[in-house]
Amino acid sequence: MIIGIVVGSVFSTRKSEKLVGNKFMIVRPLETMSAGTQQEFVAIDIIGAGVGEKVLVARGSAARIGCDCPDAPVDAAIVGIIDEGQEVR
Amino acid sequence: MIIGIVVGSVFSTRKSEKLVGNKFMIVRPLETMSAGTQQEFVAIDIIGAGVGEKVLVARGSAARIGCDCPDAPVDAAIVGIIDEGQEVR
Amino acid sequence: MIIGIVVGSVFSTRKSEKLVGNKFMIVRPLETMSAGTQQEFVAIDIIGAGVGEKVLVARGSAARIGCDCPDAPVDAAIVGIIDEGQEVR
Amino acid sequence: MIIGIVVGSVFSTRKSEKLVGNKFMIVRPLETMSAGTQQEFVAIDIIGAGVGEKVLVARGSAARIGCDCPDAPVDAAIVGIIDEGQEVR
Amino acid sequence: MIIGIVVGSVFSTRKSEKLVGNKFMIVRPLETMSAGTQQEFVAIDIIGAGVGEKVLVARGSAARIGCDCPDAPVDAAIVGIIDEGQEVR
Repeated sequence: MIIGIVVGSVFSTRKSEKLVGNKFMIVRPLETMSAGTQQEFVAIDIIGAGVGEKVLVARGSAARIGCDCPDAPVDAAIVGIIDEGQEVR
Repeated sequence: MIIGIVVGSVFSTRKSEKLVGNKFMIVRPLETMSAGTQQEFVAIDIIGAGVGEKVLVARGSAARIGCDCPDAPVDAAIVGIIDEGQEVR
Repeated sequence: MIIGIVVGSVFSTRKSEKLVGNKFMIVRPLETMSAGTQQEFVAIDIIGAGVGEKVLVARGSAARIGCDCPDAPVDAAIVGIIDEGQEVR
Repeated sequence: MIIGIVVGSVFSTRKSEKLVGNKFMIVRPLETMSAGTQQEFVAIDIIGAGVGEKVLVARGSAARIGCDCPDAPVDAAIVGIIDEGQEVR
Repeated sequence: MIIGIVVGSVFSTRKSEKLVGNKFMIVRPLETMSAGTQQEFVAIDIIGAGVGEKVLVARGSAARIGCDCPDAPVDAAIVGIIDEGQEVR
């Protein structure tokens, strides 16, 4: 998994019907977790993370397990919110 | 998932018969989603995206779920079109 | 999937018996599809691609579906040959 | 798999209930195993590795097998501790 | 798959019991197959490759198929030894 910061969300009206009801959050990986490139990606959120929060993200087939949506075309999911006060850069 | 722009399509007459009937779109990831390299790839499209549209793409095994084609050799699928007017760079 | 050019093939006599009968082609991704690095890889070929041809390659678990070999340790497969005359760089 | 060094751990109180009970360790890949970028990630630990130890990490779907947690949204797991005294850089 | 050179091996006494009996080889990808970075990784070996040999490696879920160990947390496996005398750089 990696840790990133939720920097926004995005909407898609025309989409796979298996994605209906999901929230698409834009996540920017921490600098140390992306070799400084901070290459963003879109993750499904089932935890209720808000913009600015540090989150734990699972990718690949783990994401479908993370969002309890084995039939949704999902390859990244927010699976936890990092507790505040921890020094993770 | 990542967000990219459909920049073209490609045709393949000699192909796996499991791919017959699919449209192959060339997707260029947004700058922020590819660390500036904008490394393109080919995705199956089941949403009906056109060239120039911003799309949500699922990769890996999620793509086969996204295209409702569990038996097709597909590793990327357009699963949504990003609503216009959103500031996603 | 990505598009690449077949630049050679390679032989392996001592190999997993599940790979017997397969052709191992070396594929160089197009410049636009590899951020200019053109990092090559080895793919199984079931389409009959020749050196110099532009091919569509599926990677990951999709490759085993692409080569109709669910029990072979394969993570990349040529699943189509790009029609000639298309401007894909 | 890759070899990395455990450089810390991280806590998440609000998380997927399938992750309850797991330890989240931050792993920094060895220089030779990350092209010098040493891009860190978070792995589940079932071996009992401590900060500073060199560990073997499995990623992707292998991680869920590694942590005996097929239903947890996990994409990296510490599956071994490298014996001391070995010159692995 | 990619081609690499076996540059060493590594031992882990404290490890997942599903990994007992496996050999962990350190593989350095060929220059052309790693964009010059030659980022090393650890692969299970079931073929009996020695240090200095050029090997074919499958990664991801293919590795578990390659090592006949569907229940082992393995994400890379040596599945063939490249025949000598071939000019693969």
